[in-house]
Amino acid sequence: MLKPEILDPQGQAVQRALPRLGFEGIADVRQGKRFELDVEGPLDEAALARIHEMAETFLANTVIEDFTVKVEESK
Amino acid sequence: MLKPEILDPQGQAVQRALPRLGFEGIADVRQGKRFELDVEGPLDEAALARIHEMAETFLANTVIEDFTVKVEESK
Repeated sequence: MLKPEILDPQGQAVQRALPRLGFEGIADVRQGKRFELDVEGPLDEAALARIHEMAETFLANTVIEDFTVKVEESK
Repeated sequence: MLKPEILDPQGQAVQRALPRLGFEGIADVRQGKRFELDVEGPLDEAALARIHEMAETFLANTVIEDFTVKVEESK
């Protein structure tokens, strides 16, 4: 997600459009990206550390974006 | 997220780039969108139903995308 101090024109456009479309009560909208990584092998601490590094160096632009890594069971 | 049967060239490009960058063991990457909505007032069942409808009719393109709605405490 874009850092809170970075302007998010896409999110603002969505937020302004909502009342026109009949959706009230949304104070703020931020739009961001989401990556689903399918990991081979065990998801141990080392693998998680690598994924964190991958997110930090490659998937996110940490000058303007924050990121979080979450583990989910695959369906 | 794009539905599993829909081609995701962005995700594929990321997946192919990872080994070159020294990150092995990622079987698949899918890229999608994420919206953070800041909700005014109580997040009761009616509000959640409205947000679900908003996602379905406006935020996601349900022809090619799946979506999930998750509730998180604001920081």
